[in-house]
Amino acid sequence: MNKSAILTLSCADKPGLVSRISGFIHNYGGNIISLNEFVDSGPGIFYLRIQWTLDQFKLTDDELLAAFQQQMMEINASWEINFSDKRLKLALFVSKYDHCLRDILYRHSMGEFEADIPLIISNHSDMKKIADRYSIDFYYFPINKDNKKAQEEAEVRLLQQHQIHTIILARYMQILSPEFVALYPNRIINIHHSFLPAFIGGNPYRQAFERGVKIIGATSHFVTSELDEGPIIVQETVKISHRNGIDDLIQKGRDLERMVLSKAVKLQAERRVLVSGNKTVVFE
Amino acid sequence: MNKSAILTLSCADKPGLVSRISGFIHNYGGNIISLNEFVDSGPGIFYLRIQWTLDQFKLTDDELLAAFQQQMMEINASWEINFSDKRLKLALFVSKYDHCLRDILYRHSMGEFEADIPLIISNHSDMKKIADRYSIDFYYFPINKDNKKAQEEAEVRLLQQHQIHTIILARYMQILSPEFVALYPNRIINIHHSFLPAFIGGNPYRQAFERGVKIIGATSHFVTSELDEGPIIVQETVKISHRNGIDDLIQKGRDLERMVLSKAVKLQAERRVLVSGNKTVVFE
Amino acid sequence: MNKSAILTLSCADKPGLVSRISGFIHNYGGNIISLNEFVDSGPGIFYLRIQWTLDQFKLTDDELLAAFQQQMMEINASWEINFSDKRLKLALFVSKYDHCLRDILYRHSMGEFEADIPLIISNHSDMKKIADRYSIDFYYFPINKDNKKAQEEAEVRLLQQHQIHTIILARYMQILSPEFVALYPNRIINIHHSFLPAFIGGNPYRQAFERGVKIIGATSHFVTSELDEGPIIVQETVKISHRNGIDDLIQKGRDLERMVLSKAVKLQAERRVLVSGNKTVVFE
Amino acid sequence: MNKSAILTLSCADKPGLVSRISGFIHNYGGNIISLNEFVDSGPGIFYLRIQWTLDQFKLTDDELLAAFQQQMMEINASWEINFSDKRLKLALFVSKYDHCLRDILYRHSMGEFEADIPLIISNHSDMKKIADRYSIDFYYFPINKDNKKAQEEAEVRLLQQHQIHTIILARYMQILSPEFVALYPNRIINIHHSFLPAFIGGNPYRQAFERGVKIIGATSHFVTSELDEGPIIVQETVKISHRNGIDDLIQKGRDLERMVLSKAVKLQAERRVLVSGNKTVVFE
Repeated sequence: MNKSAILTLSCADKPGLVSRISGFIHNYGGNIISLNEFVDSGPGIFYLRIQWTLDQFKLTDDELLAAFQQQMMEINASWEINFSDKRLKLALFVSKYDHCLRDILYRHSMGEFEADIPLIISNHSDMKKIADRYSIDFYYFPINKDNKKAQEEAEVRLLQQHQIHTIILARYMQILSPEFVALYPNRIINIHHSFLPAFIGGNPYRQAFERGVKIIGATSHFVTSELDEGPIIVQETVKISHRNGIDDLIQKGRDLERMVLSKAVKLQAERRVLVSGNKTVVFE
Repeated sequence: MNKSAILTLSCADKPGLVSRISGFIHNYGGNIISLNEFVDSGPGIFYLRIQWTLDQFKLTDDELLAAFQQQMMEINASWEINFSDKRLKLALFVSKYDHCLRDILYRHSMGEFEADIPLIISNHSDMKKIADRYSIDFYYFPINKDNKKAQEEAEVRLLQQHQIHTIILARYMQILSPEFVALYPNRIINIHHSFLPAFIGGNPYRQAFERGVKIIGATSHFVTSELDEGPIIVQETVKISHRNGIDDLIQKGRDLERMVLSKAVKLQAERRVLVSGNKTVVFE
Repeated sequence: MNKSAILTLSCADKPGLVSRISGFIHNYGGNIISLNEFVDSGPGIFYLRIQWTLDQFKLTDDELLAAFQQQMMEINASWEINFSDKRLKLALFVSKYDHCLRDILYRHSMGEFEADIPLIISNHSDMKKIADRYSIDFYYFPINKDNKKAQEEAEVRLLQQHQIHTIILARYMQILSPEFVALYPNRIINIHHSFLPAFIGGNPYRQAFERGVKIIGATSHFVTSELDEGPIIVQETVKISHRNGIDDLIQKGRDLERMVLSKAVKLQAERRVLVSGNKTVVFE
Repeated sequence: MNKSAILTLSCADKPGLVSRISGFIHNYGGNIISLNEFVDSGPGIFYLRIQWTLDQFKLTDDELLAAFQQQMMEINASWEINFSDKRLKLALFVSKYDHCLRDILYRHSMGEFEADIPLIISNHSDMKKIADRYSIDFYYFPINKDNKKAQEEAEVRLLQQHQIHTIILARYMQILSPEFVALYPNRIINIHHSFLPAFIGGNPYRQAFERGVKIIGATSHFVTSELDEGPIIVQETVKISHRNGIDDLIQKGRDLERMVLSKAVKLQAERRVLVSGNKTVVFE
């Protein structure tokens, strides 16, 4: 696979955007291999994901970024360019449940994600042995009321040092402070074990059991300052029956959670998720 | 298909219940063709659905009912016996949306339901032409604040006259009074166009669109005095994407609603739904 | 909704195609509202579906077609342009099973398809009453060995007269002659009641029952000269259990068949299906 | 959880079977906690799975087996009784693909299966490290044309020594000899990576890719002497699109394969699968 670039972009819609950007790419020798466009006609917003080859490209990466900076200012767009030889860096946060962590690490080892995972952070030491097996650095940051601020600051230094792009909360059972969340806007992905907005908050499987629903779900979403209210990326559901007790729901839910979170990780790694207000545009 | 009987029953669990009931049936010459049992070990409740042939049975229907009455008093059970030659009678309530009504009537015409549908009741006259096509009596009861009590009483007289067992609200856009609901406990089935408990109340598709969910759902449930809070019978979901506006959700939802409501009708007609508190046991 | 055009196109991949076409559209005052691109990197084929507004467009429809003709010759592309005010014309072929026909006509009446349905053709007269209800012309062409050639020729004259673009076989139980099929390459859509390539040919539900599968399926595909071998458009499956006899499979299959065929009709009406060899590219 | 017994049984249907067996259990002090019955009305075969508590039971396990032996001879039934304190023993066979093996071992470690896994057998040594991690004995039996018979005999000795009830082929890439298969009738479970009967034999993902299907599947089935033709236990499918190359199919298929095989293992461990000819009755 030759080197390629991916541009993701959103801006106010107006005529000529595709022509302008595809023309720019063509002029410098790029060949578009994938293009997704969506216009949200209500608010009139244009979303684009475009991937092109760089092997014949006449600009260096830095020249490309500089040239795009100019183009993008003219159309007042939010944008990001990623290069295939500088894979996205992800940090995994985990507590004591291991199923999501294991699933992500296994898929990563099988080459399912266009991303690197340089480190795992946990408020417990239990997962160190799994991290070791995959030769990924493991950092143990126990959190309590008194040290939370200091520990989060230490975590942030570590994340910045490793140039982490996105944080994956793989069943991380600590609420991140608003200050922490603000540093990674739409760059922290959580898994909630219900089909949001049903069963917000704690013990969703118990809530589901008590309500007597016939389906349970899982939701991956970006973390915002409001709990379980961020933009939804992926949701899946599975049927349950009256025979299923809470333990069965937890067991079935484990399958859903790992599938839904891993799918979000894959989408994010491939830059397929654009955020607009409290919603996502997912270019599958 | 020879004549058969279906017994549905729930009571406090204790040893010997299956033996007792299957022994009773065998003693009188019945052959069990289907048996479903569930014990909810938490509260210790026993649920049973059992179907047996009556062609060699030594009791008349009335003798059977009387004999069972005796048996059931001894174990303090809630129970019901239905005979295959006296099919369940259903009344359909509808307003202006026709998709659920059409689906039920078409399936009924194809023989999918073990039930009769002697009448359709509506607060609008629009659906009369569809009722006529299927040769089903159509009754028009316009409802307003002033006449609601009187109209409901007239409806109830009609329902009783036709010995209606279960009422199907096929997108009936009137809230039934508590007095009406109390007359048909766990015998009124509604379709709600969301995966309850998400998006209770009005405009669930708009709510879903605004929250930016990636799945929508539909829920059929028994009607209780609390809106959208009754025991859930069937739920299904379908994926949506950022490309789908509210109109697309309504369109995709129509498919879900008719599928979910028709499935509940079929289950109820075959006596596969038992209610326990605010949950259902569904013997598929 | 303002007038728009949809271009579908495939050709050998080369740099600059998106830029060229989007530039052309922009130059004449069109605003792209939707764009789907796919490059099949194996054979190196480029597929495109692009929709743009025409309300500010500087060319008439005929001028646009002529200008595109020129462009397309230069890149040796297969292409088609459809205008939103000249909706695709579909003919429905049906025999005695009515579920697919009813489903398509109901959805059509609800505005789900960007298409017109000027006529229904059948080798039986049974469906005339349904056609009448929807005020669609119904033509009865009984077919036997002796008259088949003549009847098909009469059908073709009728189809040409109505400028039919695509033929939908809604459970049409006659095999079309190779001559007929050759007149509508990739423009005849069939529904086969199995998840092809399993259970090709007759009685797929019986075959499925006898093999003891745990899922059944349905497949919509373009008709080619080889039975059940054409490019697949949509497939869906549903679970079955040991409790299901052949009648249950037929009943569950009815739901699948109508859903799968209607989905293919919708995709085709919106020009979302491109054919490449024996496969389809479906831009959802 | 108190000790319980599970009886699985099939025989020619006749009146009084449920009464007889439930009466027997009740007479000796057992309380039925789960009962599934199915009568295949075509050939007239009765299938039963019944579970009851043993804490008040008046017979020892051996007395129970002897008493049942007597009962079962009278009705000429195939039957098996399993006790909850003597869990089913499974052997896993694996080659070089690790996803199914890992999934089974992880679920086993989480307590999802009512079974023990005393050993893993492989024709390659690669999986030893995973076996070690879970502290399960690993036996390496390289197979070639010359040693196949001898190696299989050694395997069988090992299996008998460990009283293995069922063999799970977790992507085992060797065809077992008919002699081996005959020793474990309906006790060898395989995973095939297609929705059988489509794409029997080798390279099913390539076959699926080349046919251009829109769904792929996986099938777990009992192994018989005819390749991929044994009774099907579980099947699942997942959608694919034109964007998916063979590698994507393999990746999506891995998820299906492990889910479908693990589901079959769970069903078998709980004695929920009865075989009848070339089909299964699955009491979920």
